[in-house]
Amino acid sequence: MSSTSRRRAAAIALLAGAALAVPAAAWADPTDHGGAARLDGDQTQAVRDALVEGPATNVILLIGDGMGDSEITVARNYAEGAAGTLAGIDALPLTGQYTTWALTADGLPNYASESASTASAWSTGTKTVNGRLSVDVEGAPQPTLLELARANGLRTGNVTTSEIQDATSGAQVSHVGARSCYGPEDMAACAGQSLEEGGLGSISEQLLNVRPDVTLGGGAETFDQVATGGPWAGATLRDQARERGYQVVGDVAGLDAVTAADATRPVLGLFTPGNFPVRYTGPEATIGGGDLDPVTCTENPERLDSDLSLGSLTSKAIELLDSSDGFFLQVEGASIDKRDHAADACGQIGETVDLDEAVQVALDFARQDGETLVVVTADHAHTSQIVGSTPPGPSVHLLTQEGVGMIVSYGTSELGESMQHTGAQVRIAGYGPGAANVLGLTDQTDLFFTSARTLELDADVAALSADATLTLSSPTVAPGASVTAQVTGLAADWQATTTLADAAVAEVPVDVLDGGASVPFTAPAEPGTYRVAVTGAQTGTVLAADLVVSPTATDAPTTPVPTEVPTGGPVPSDAPTDVPTDGAGAGTGGRPGPPLSLTGADVAGYSLIAAALLVGGTGLAVWRRRQLRASV
Amino acid sequence: MSSTSRRRAAAIALLAGAALAVPAAAWADPTDHGGAARLDGDQTQAVRDALVEGPATNVILLIGDGMGDSEITVARNYAEGAAGTLAGIDALPLTGQYTTWALTADGLPNYASESASTASAWSTGTKTVNGRLSVDVEGAPQPTLLELARANGLRTGNVTTSEIQDATSGAQVSHVGARSCYGPEDMAACAGQSLEEGGLGSISEQLLNVRPDVTLGGGAETFDQVATGGPWAGATLRDQARERGYQVVGDVAGLDAVTAADATRPVLGLFTPGNFPVRYTGPEATIGGGDLDPVTCTENPERLDSDLSLGSLTSKAIELLDSSDGFFLQVEGASIDKRDHAADACGQIGETVDLDEAVQVALDFARQDGETLVVVTADHAHTSQIVGSTPPGPSVHLLTQEGVGMIVSYGTSELGESMQHTGAQVRIAGYGPGAANVLGLTDQTDLFFTSARTLELDADVAALSADATLTLSSPTVAPGASVTAQVTGLAADWQATTTLADAAVAEVPVDVLDGGASVPFTAPAEPGTYRVAVTGAQTGTVLAADLVVSPTATDAPTTPVPTEVPTGGPVPSDAPTDVPTDGAGAGTGGRPGPPLSLTGADVAGYSLIAAALLVGGTGLAVWRRRQLRASV
Repeated sequence: MSSTSRRRAAAIALLAGAALAVPAAAWADPTDHGGAARLDGDQTQAVRDALVEGPATNVILLIGDGMGDSEITVARNYAEGAAGTLAGIDALPLTGQYTTWALTADGLPNYASESASTASAWSTGTKTVNGRLSVDVEGAPQPTLLELARANGLRTGNVTTSEIQDATSGAQVSHVGARSCYGPEDMAACAGQSLEEGGLGSISEQLLNVRPDVTLGGGAETFDQVATGGPWAGATLRDQARERGYQVVGDVAGLDAVTAADATRPVLGLFTPGNFPVRYTGPEATIGGGDLDPVTCTENPERLDSDLSLGSLTSKAIELLDSSDGFFLQVEGASIDKRDHAADACGQIGETVDLDEAVQVALDFARQDGETLVVVTADHAHTSQIVGSTPPGPSVHLLTQEGVGMIVSYGTSELGESMQHTGAQVRIAGYGPGAANVLGLTDQTDLFFTSARTLELDADVAALSADATLTLSSPTVAPGASVTAQVTGLAADWQATTTLADAAVAEVPVDVLDGGASVPFTAPAEPGTYRVAVTGAQTGTVLAADLVVSPTATDAPTTPVPTEVPTGGPVPSDAPTDVPTDGAGAGTGGRPGPPLSLTGADVAGYSLIAAALLVGGTGLAVWRRRQLRASV
Repeated sequence: MSSTSRRRAAAIALLAGAALAVPAAAWADPTDHGGAARLDGDQTQAVRDALVEGPATNVILLIGDGMGDSEITVARNYAEGAAGTLAGIDALPLTGQYTTWALTADGLPNYASESASTASAWSTGTKTVNGRLSVDVEGAPQPTLLELARANGLRTGNVTTSEIQDATSGAQVSHVGARSCYGPEDMAACAGQSLEEGGLGSISEQLLNVRPDVTLGGGAETFDQVATGGPWAGATLRDQARERGYQVVGDVAGLDAVTAADATRPVLGLFTPGNFPVRYTGPEATIGGGDLDPVTCTENPERLDSDLSLGSLTSKAIELLDSSDGFFLQVEGASIDKRDHAADACGQIGETVDLDEAVQVALDFARQDGETLVVVTADHAHTSQIVGSTPPGPSVHLLTQEGVGMIVSYGTSELGESMQHTGAQVRIAGYGPGAANVLGLTDQTDLFFTSARTLELDADVAALSADATLTLSSPTVAPGASVTAQVTGLAADWQATTTLADAAVAEVPVDVLDGGASVPFTAPAEPGTYRVAVTGAQTGTVLAADLVVSPTATDAPTTPVPTEVPTGGPVPSDAPTDVPTDGAGAGTGGRPGPPLSLTGADVAGYSLIAAALLVGGTGLAVWRRRQLRASV
């Protein structure tokens, strides 16, 4: 080729580049060639850079309830313009679609699902029947991501703009046959499942058992209900929560005062009696509404303080949860769905914008952190559709922020009735380690496996508690002495009951914190050998040890067991310096593990475990996950 | 850690793996834990492997007209079951969403678009007004992907199940103000755009000018119209096509007989007078239809021979187009939209299944070929929604292939009226080099840039023809001698007119094939110097050379110029062996290029160009793209 030809080829290449260059949308005239394009050149390398294998230390799932692609587009058009960008939702680099169908009671597909069956699907990896929470088609409870995260030593959070008992948030912390079973007074649809009937109890009561580190939302009203069965019968759920160590807060000041939250002192923020008030209000859809002059939405004066916006709550939750333990956090923008049901376009738009702010918070954290998987998706699609002319059913004519009319149609129910969910596959988008698993077509249940795999959660609940040990403060004591049964490693149990010679030592089961619990009791007056048994309430794991009551035992005071020691801190000076060879039993529930068998080479390891024993098991649970990760 | 602990950790890791193992959906019970999951473990590496930078040799765009996520889900549920997989559409590894809004005539967003504005968006990279084809908001024609592919030396194809003049296919080959302007008798809505008014003519007439190598679809009826203006006035479009070298076929036998198609002998397959009959028929949606017993769809006895299915036509098109030149092929499943308008769920399902087969064909080719970008998307979303109970508007109750009832709602128009498009963002999915550009949120116009960039198309139309040359068979001839004006490199022009001393040498412009054309004419009887000018019809590029008529010129016969030589074949033995130093002019339209300036070192290169001159410019156009690619 001549040098002229070469120069010309180069010039053509430049020109070709120029012709294909795309102006940034913000400055572009959408009527220009390329003026509406969103990409600025080839993004293959950028996508490649966004592909990071797990594990991730943290997972944040953000759910727009009822936020199908139509709802996203309605919100973008209104708030940012058709060529605009929702700064959170639209910024996720990895995207796909997932299917959201549920099951009939016969185990056949139900093509139109709702929030309970769908939340159960990603919470547990198991499809279920509409209306049920985290039980399978046979009614058997299925462990949830939040529960498994807790059992694996991670911090956990659950944030929503609805009542926290509502389906999406409820599915992470409870297992009931009907999503309406909020509190002990609401169990009509949950026959056999109340505490007095020997069931797991209402959604709120199960939530109190699971003890997520952070729970923020509405639904305070239900906590005024009085327990009708179980260990806290007669007390309000609010009092029960306080008694069990929860930091119960109800306003900005209360939340501001919470500077730390963990299993010992979980935070339960209940900011409204029911659902949060929405962000925007606007015209109701009417028959012929599309023909009316277009109007803008209005800020709702009832809206909570901006410190209680979904974005602010997400920020607070992350602040409380972020640690080397890792965390699982679910955040729900709940009322996109509720306002879509109500044919309230402004309502659903405001809630989508609100969720978008929460996504921005999560993304900001994840970008800084580098070890956080963020997933944004919906539970199911919904009714609202953008149309070009007034439909026969309810519709509304909005004036968008770019000054153009947009007609939104609500055509699945009669005016004044609740609009229906729809069965279309919905968008799922992700950022961070493991996010590649949102690409292509997946099912809602895949999100469970993606999250669990990325967090390296051991999903075998029985095995998680099978390594548990029971240690008595002293295996041989004087009659009537104070004894403490110390449990550790009961990772997948939230409560434990203790018996001494088959009699309960306390009316109320003890809360198991990070797999550990201390149960003080008094030794019998009669000398003899007594069986002490601790049973995990969730896995049924039974730990047993023999207590010898002997008049010849020294009357030395038992070693006090501290209930709070900073994780990773020094071994307390009063830690035992020898290996207990008696009074220590291994778990018998699930797959029993061998008893601790320590050799000289393991002394350093033992010291670590001994220290863990003293801090309520936290260290051990975390250690388990780290081991798991190291051996994968 | 003890060896026991180590073994246990390994066992836990194995168990954790087992607990997270997902059975393949085909064999799984969807009521089981993991039974509905679609992924089989982490897919990060699989996604990474799917990321391939361009360039690609070929691009195949497959468009499901009106195929929003709801329409995809309706079809999957019906044909494959909720847990099933559409073997083509669902198999694309890289996925995202794009926005589909149009413009008002004032240049503001129109949130509810239709097939003309949307097809124009990805065909040209320029948004336009509903109803317009590949002109901008001012009415100015915008070059299309198919035209640019042709101008850059690629093979081109356009396949649809609708009339080929319909919006999606029409947008690639025409520039009109109204999509209804199919033929010369249909120009009512296109004032000033007919050939007799000096416009570009009807969609069909523009299609004949563009000369895609392969055009397959319906719309035969329009070709019976008689041209009312322009060079072929008085002839039917069908006769015009034949006269201009098209292989016009109308049935399976005719198509089977076509074994090669290129710009010299393009194939125009017109298999139905209007749109293709659909694949499935079924119950019309009615008020209360969701309450009726569910029914299955029926195979339509009117359906065309399976050799004319969209999959078969796609296969035939690829077979005809596949060469080292590369190709751009658009395939449309047109009647998903049309049956959605008609509230005909079975109709839209069958057409989605039909498109899915075409996607499978494209993917099979691309997987073998390794240099083909396949993109599957829709032009806009549509009305149909899956609901759980009978809506107030039209609905239908289908019995899916898994024996379950599915209610499909059509709620944007009254029963019996045309259902509306909807404005939701839609799925875009890809495979192959450049496919990463479908991820995240893009706009429909990005698909133009992604395709053009991946094919390394020079989008500067004027520049593409600016290197053109005009060579006379002899610069000096005897009075009345036969002369041939040979044009090459007029890459972005489809026709050229030739004048001798400002008088046209023929009534009909010559078709420019791959940038080249031969125009025979007779030299004037009077000695003198005459200006010969060739003007490209599309770019306006003017090429000029002087012809000297002299009685002293030898009366040697002019070198015959063959019109067909196999591409890449040997230089004919009667090829010129010397460089024409006279009678060769460079283009003057657009950005004029320097005249060919050859040195001794370029003799081999020159021979190549000289050979190209003889084969109508094909070699040069391809050479240009290869150069461009090499210099990127």
